[in-house]
Amino acid sequence: MENLKLTDDNFQMKSIRPVYDSKTPTDVYVDLFVTSITDVNEKAQSISTQVIFEALWNNEFIEWKQEDFCQTSKISLKKDTIWIPDIVIAESIKTEFANVENPYVKMNSDGSVYMYETLTLSSACKMDLINFPFDVQTCNLTIHSPMHSSDELTLNPWSDSLFLTSSSQNAFQTQGEWELLSINTSISHVSSLGYYEDQLIYKITLKRRPLLYVITFISPVFCFLVLDLASYFIDAGGGEKLSFKVTLLLSMSVLLLILNDKLPSTANEVPWIGVYCSLIFILIGISILETILVNFLMARGEQILRSQAPIDSTSAVTDAVMNSDENPAERRCLYWTRAARIVDIIAVILYIITIMVFLPIMYYAWFMASVT
Amino acid sequence: MENLKLTDDNFQMKSIRPVYDSKTPTDVYVDLFVTSITDVNEKAQSISTQVIFEALWNNEFIEWKQEDFCQTSKISLKKDTIWIPDIVIAESIKTEFANVENPYVKMNSDGSVYMYETLTLSSACKMDLINFPFDVQTCNLTIHSPMHSSDELTLNPWSDSLFLTSSSQNAFQTQGEWELLSINTSISHVSSLGYYEDQLIYKITLKRRPLLYVITFISPVFCFLVLDLASYFIDAGGGEKLSFKVTLLLSMSVLLLILNDKLPSTANEVPWIGVYCSLIFILIGISILETILVNFLMARGEQILRSQAPIDSTSAVTDAVMNSDENPAERRCLYWTRAARIVDIIAVILYIITIMVFLPIMYYAWFMASVT
Amino acid sequence: MENLKLTDDNFQMKSIRPVYDSKTPTDVYVDLFVTSITDVNEKAQSISTQVIFEALWNNEFIEWKQEDFCQTSKISLKKDTIWIPDIVIAESIKTEFANVENPYVKMNSDGSVYMYETLTLSSACKMDLINFPFDVQTCNLTIHSPMHSSDELTLNPWSDSLFLTSSSQNAFQTQGEWELLSINTSISHVSSLGYYEDQLIYKITLKRRPLLYVITFISPVFCFLVLDLASYFIDAGGGEKLSFKVTLLLSMSVLLLILNDKLPSTANEVPWIGVYCSLIFILIGISILETILVNFLMARGEQILRSQAPIDSTSAVTDAVMNSDENPAERRCLYWTRAARIVDIIAVILYIITIMVFLPIMYYAWFMASVT
Amino acid sequence: MENLKLTDDNFQMKSIRPVYDSKTPTDVYVDLFVTSITDVNEKAQSISTQVIFEALWNNEFIEWKQEDFCQTSKISLKKDTIWIPDIVIAESIKTEFANVENPYVKMNSDGSVYMYETLTLSSACKMDLINFPFDVQTCNLTIHSPMHSSDELTLNPWSDSLFLTSSSQNAFQTQGEWELLSINTSISHVSSLGYYEDQLIYKITLKRRPLLYVITFISPVFCFLVLDLASYFIDAGGGEKLSFKVTLLLSMSVLLLILNDKLPSTANEVPWIGVYCSLIFILIGISILETILVNFLMARGEQILRSQAPIDSTSAVTDAVMNSDENPAERRCLYWTRAARIVDIIAVILYIITIMVFLPIMYYAWFMASVT
Amino acid sequence: MENLKLTDDNFQMKSIRPVYDSKTPTDVYVDLFVTSITDVNEKAQSISTQVIFEALWNNEFIEWKQEDFCQTSKISLKKDTIWIPDIVIAESIKTEFANVENPYVKMNSDGSVYMYETLTLSSACKMDLINFPFDVQTCNLTIHSPMHSSDELTLNPWSDSLFLTSSSQNAFQTQGEWELLSINTSISHVSSLGYYEDQLIYKITLKRRPLLYVITFISPVFCFLVLDLASYFIDAGGGEKLSFKVTLLLSMSVLLLILNDKLPSTANEVPWIGVYCSLIFILIGISILETILVNFLMARGEQILRSQAPIDSTSAVTDAVMNSDENPAERRCLYWTRAARIVDIIAVILYIITIMVFLPIMYYAWFMASVT
Repeated sequence: MENLKLTDDNFQMKSIRPVYDSKTPTDVYVDLFVTSITDVNEKAQSISTQVIFEALWNNEFIEWKQEDFCQTSKISLKKDTIWIPDIVIAESIKTEFANVENPYVKMNSDGSVYMYETLTLSSACKMDLINFPFDVQTCNLTIHSPMHSSDELTLNPWSDSLFLTSSSQNAFQTQGEWELLSINTSISHVSSLGYYEDQLIYKITLKRRPLLYVITFISPVFCFLVLDLASYFIDAGGGEKLSFKVTLLLSMSVLLLILNDKLPSTANEVPWIGVYCSLIFILIGISILETILVNFLMARGEQILRSQAPIDSTSAVTDAVMNSDENPAERRCLYWTRAARIVDIIAVILYIITIMVFLPIMYYAWFMASVT
Repeated sequence: MENLKLTDDNFQMKSIRPVYDSKTPTDVYVDLFVTSITDVNEKAQSISTQVIFEALWNNEFIEWKQEDFCQTSKISLKKDTIWIPDIVIAESIKTEFANVENPYVKMNSDGSVYMYETLTLSSACKMDLINFPFDVQTCNLTIHSPMHSSDELTLNPWSDSLFLTSSSQNAFQTQGEWELLSINTSISHVSSLGYYEDQLIYKITLKRRPLLYVITFISPVFCFLVLDLASYFIDAGGGEKLSFKVTLLLSMSVLLLILNDKLPSTANEVPWIGVYCSLIFILIGISILETILVNFLMARGEQILRSQAPIDSTSAVTDAVMNSDENPAERRCLYWTRAARIVDIIAVILYIITIMVFLPIMYYAWFMASVT
Repeated sequence: MENLKLTDDNFQMKSIRPVYDSKTPTDVYVDLFVTSITDVNEKAQSISTQVIFEALWNNEFIEWKQEDFCQTSKISLKKDTIWIPDIVIAESIKTEFANVENPYVKMNSDGSVYMYETLTLSSACKMDLINFPFDVQTCNLTIHSPMHSSDELTLNPWSDSLFLTSSSQNAFQTQGEWELLSINTSISHVSSLGYYEDQLIYKITLKRRPLLYVITFISPVFCFLVLDLASYFIDAGGGEKLSFKVTLLLSMSVLLLILNDKLPSTANEVPWIGVYCSLIFILIGISILETILVNFLMARGEQILRSQAPIDSTSAVTDAVMNSDENPAERRCLYWTRAARIVDIIAVILYIITIMVFLPIMYYAWFMASVT
Repeated sequence: MENLKLTDDNFQMKSIRPVYDSKTPTDVYVDLFVTSITDVNEKAQSISTQVIFEALWNNEFIEWKQEDFCQTSKISLKKDTIWIPDIVIAESIKTEFANVENPYVKMNSDGSVYMYETLTLSSACKMDLINFPFDVQTCNLTIHSPMHSSDELTLNPWSDSLFLTSSSQNAFQTQGEWELLSINTSISHVSSLGYYEDQLIYKITLKRRPLLYVITFISPVFCFLVLDLASYFIDAGGGEKLSFKVTLLLSMSVLLLILNDKLPSTANEVPWIGVYCSLIFILIGISILETILVNFLMARGEQILRSQAPIDSTSAVTDAVMNSDENPAERRCLYWTRAARIVDIIAVILYIITIMVFLPIMYYAWFMASVT
Repeated sequence: MENLKLTDDNFQMKSIRPVYDSKTPTDVYVDLFVTSITDVNEKAQSISTQVIFEALWNNEFIEWKQEDFCQTSKISLKKDTIWIPDIVIAESIKTEFANVENPYVKMNSDGSVYMYETLTLSSACKMDLINFPFDVQTCNLTIHSPMHSSDELTLNPWSDSLFLTSSSQNAFQTQGEWELLSINTSISHVSSLGYYEDQLIYKITLKRRPLLYVITFISPVFCFLVLDLASYFIDAGGGEKLSFKVTLLLSMSVLLLILNDKLPSTANEVPWIGVYCSLIFILIGISILETILVNFLMARGEQILRSQAPIDSTSAVTDAVMNSDENPAERRCLYWTRAARIVDIIAVILYIITIMVFLPIMYYAWFMASVT
């Protein structure tokens, strides 16, 4: 074994890129499988994944003939005894070994070295939450070598995108909030400080499963909208209409607690779910104002009638019904009542138009955008 | 001791698989006991366990006669002085030593090496939450050697499944949300990149204890359903029916906060608890709509009567009772009132049918599925 | 110093148990003080403590005469230069050095070695939450050596339980949710894989301080029970009784959010706090049903009376009072009203009996159990 | 450089306390600045701080003449090449380097060694929450050497308390929930296991900024108290009084969610905020009971009147007004009504007295205690 | 390679600052790019960022002629084989390598050494939350060498502020709650313990995106204010006004839960959002008090009228209308009613004035301050 110059103290073996001519680049073949997504944090704009990272490169310093070493075609070596390329993920916030660090690499008799790691990766990912919770996110994992230019180290994808996607989907150990749509690979040469660098970009596309948000937020809010609309048919007189509507508003406040939990304060543009929630909150608010106005108009009418009433029989006053005798007070009262009714009808029509216009627009913008 | 070639710097001892003929596989006997489950995270689809991991294998390089070493049959050695197999758990997201890393392995005079570790393991686990909280989850722990093919390293279960299950259940230090049902072992040979790899799969079956969810969510929601159904017997006239029902809806919104806390947005299919909650929310919503409709119909009837009333005596109008004099206004009023009553009765019947049909179906699908 | 064979590279010094005859066991004297409890996680069934761990054992390899070394009776040595026993805590989920790891051990001229560590320990602990929040928990810390049998390494308590308890209580730096009642030590010899192992078990008994739970949960819930009971004296007619009771139910839903936060879904048996909460929730629910029934019966009575009324004077109908003229309609009405009253009285009696029976039972089971 | 015996392998340099005569103690001068408080966890009774730790001691083994080494008066050395005192913080739960560990110490030509570390420290701290949120906490950081007695290592404060406090306050990088009042230093010699140990105690005094708690908890609760008191002036008849009061109680339940979030279940004595909250909760509860009683008494009175009414004219019954004709029924009715009124007045007086007595007492105990 | 004296054991190479004359300072050129902000914790007053840290300095010990080494102009070396400057970030609470630590530095033939690290940095930052959520925060990252004075090590910015800002904004991988406005660099020489130290200060200016807070807190609270104001037009008589207003107060309590979540208890001055919330809470509270007062006055009036009523015809009493017959009771009644009306009007006017004065002031102080 010492023939292979592998000892603990071999400085050259450990520190120097294993090429005899420093102008020869080391070709590194890389594969990255996503085996589970454990967290997508919209607030921190980060994604936590478990990935399998495989790399293969050539070590020119080591080579042996199988015949000389009892037909041994491959051996496992401790990592810290040879040179390992410094390949990192640019977006990484934290990279940890998913297991205790694998101490070995595999070396074949032709000098090729194979490395296999399961990594737990937390990486930054720019997310657009405008269609939340019907959103599709694309996160990049950019593999590069910070210390070696492309003259020294080239990065090549080992497998193609299709195989990566299907393997990742097969290996996918979790069935969580996110569905893995695809993994695409692309290579780019980036100029940085006067030299070129190889970058291997894995574009991971994920689709959120919106079920919980529909159940606990969108459909209850929609339910409140329907009930608020229906409340126009509640008799305005008894006070229960107002109490009904303000309870709906209170329920909306409770649901705001959920929205507050779910939606991060991130977007520059207003996300649709915020528009949806605000619009319905404000619609209910305005319809309460309208109810107060109508009630006020009707109370005004009755008051005029009543202040005139003593002239009539007291029993008629009792119920404030509309007498057919055409005195001026009653006529004025009728004006008020009619005004109230007209306000009511206009409000309902405007309400329905708003909903009619808004909901389909939102439907297209929100749901459709996520489908295409 | 130096006879055994054990020194700090012995490269061969530390890095090379301890067989004289590289074609001989190293047989590793493995045991894995689950001693506690500290967390099951449905959102991250991960499970945190404390496991005891034991491994036994043969080191051909070391062997001694007890007579030569003062009858010493076994010695404890520092781990970093000899070769240790690179056995990892494929699903692991994070593996940590539960204690400070055990620095020793035990070596017997016949060359067999025994390793014992208590590990704190966080591993990915595909969970199906359709029956939540009456669900049973099965998590796999796949033990394999990423660097060695089955020609080089074979993995064998040391104990059988029955012993593992009973030992784990005995050693189980916690009495948390999850009950350990069984641990099953299976071996598989998996082809990967042209060579075969040994995999030892531990299938851990867990059953959730649903108590808290029943107390804080399922039974209160059911309680609201019963109260909503009972509210059909509240006199529609006074406005308290509507206020009663909308308060139930508000209480449902509060409970949505709990559902939101508990249920991760994971399933492709709608979990039963979501169906249950949505159905009852919508039932209460529809019954409110129905109440508004009935009130509207009755108010209409009264209004017709009242608008005709001035012809009659004012005192009769006062209470809008049904006079027996059969004028057309009253007849129309009766039509409205009857329509209201019919709507009411049909609604109750539909309501009860919905519940009668739905609840048993859910009972079978939800509870039964988890029992079998 | 080199006379003592202490150099960095001395393999024997670092790796081999320091006895000349491998049959001599190393006697290790151990002390474990609990200096603070930082977290008790009922959900994970784990407890986080800060402990001081002290160990003393003999190193036969080193011994010196004070005269030869300038009267030096003790020296401090770097830990990694000598053998340290592999003592671990079986229940540990995570053991970390509370400070940066202490790099030294103290060695006396007679060869005895003293080690001192402050550890932050997170360990599994089987908790029984049936009496939550009036519970007393007992957590074990089992000290053993996974690699050495009792022939090789014996574990002995250095101080006795009384001293440990009093020292720990004195050193106790926190005054949190838990009160340290006592620490008991016991030694056991456990057979494992054919050889015996020494185990030193520290039994730590803790008592929860239930104040917050009483203030934010138990007493408000009790308050709602009293108010619900009192609401029987509200006049049933006006609709405010129903609205009062359903608001109580809504308040109970809000408190369920707290219960949901506090109580882990762990117990096999129903914990008393769950029973308490469910019972009061259901009592309020049933009393609402009863109110609806009574209102329905009374409305029925009035309706019969009213439908008969036109025969009488309209003014009498106005208020639906009970006329003394004994027509059959009124008699039927009275039956209904009496039925309502009887239902009401029976309900109150049953209600009070339920409370009278249940509360004392719960008092004994819940509070008393925790006292004894 | 080798003249200074500084090589990687120099065992004596690294492991032995740098004195020629082992009876000479090493004098260590220590400074500890608190530069920010990142977390105070009342539940865990721990405090997280960022501290700068400086130490200076003499190394007798190294000394050089500046002339001999090109006038070099000081050099920076790697830490692991020389002896470093084992100084730890007794209360520490977790000590981490705030930056990547500083690999160097500074050595002067006279042999003095200077060490500088920025540490992120999580330490246990006994907190008394009785005045929460107007509390002042005092946390100790006890610096000692677990392995060296005061014969071997003495600990001395480098700067005085005043300088420490002002430097810390200047360096204070955060303006969070806590205000740093002062840092006091004291030295103590503690006997432990037969020898004396030097302890340097830093007493850190912190004052909480109570603003958020006043805004989100204390003032809303007080607001509810005022409204509940004002509700005595609501006309008891209409049912809105009861509904008003029970809504206040519901709002109190919502605020209990906040209290539950903020207040840890720690104190042996009841903290004032708990007393405050419970008292107001119970006051509102009792005042609801009183309202029910008054309503019941008045309903009783009316009922007596009504049951007698048919003797009178039906129109009088209609409104249940008090007729001046003095029949016995009315007189009994008046008794009931008067009883109701008396109960009401007594209740208001008792209510006001309770508040008058309680609030000033609490003001003194709660706010005053924190000022002095 | 050994010509360059690079071996594992070269003590001088690893530990000594690479200058031949210890009086020559080492000039270090530093760059720091902020590539993402993952968390801003107002409670802990800390900010978590991912930064790219680049440094370049000269190593006088190493130099080679490209001709002698096969035209190799640069090599990558393992970090632990040469001296690395001890540059730290003073505000850092925790610095971690974003990837597995980069093991290499790049060395050019002229002796210049280039280091590149991606760091995950959690640093203390003094935040002023008075304008929350419309706030702009400025966080400093102070780079210095704790062990080297400016005579030994000088720190220089590599790139200028403009380039840093634009590069950081381009590299910015996240689109979270915070927008990066600019990065400014400044150098300062700080005196510390008698010698001068170089400090390179990066001032990072961030602007919060306030959207979520506007949707879930500020606009709903404003909505409640408008509704409360509108409720003055609700007819005071029926009790629904009070119930409406107390439900608004309850909704405010629910929103307090959100405020409690969002706003840390930090500021010395009251932040505007707290002022805003408290003011509206108190305005609603006072308007409830006013409603109770008005109702009380009107009830008083009616009571006087009623107690006089039996003298009149009972039918008149029934509705407590204002008879035109001018008896003293009615006149007193009118006084009360007028008082009620005057109180009502004054209250509305004061209410509107308060809002008119307060809202614009707040608009300037709150929004404007954040713009400029």
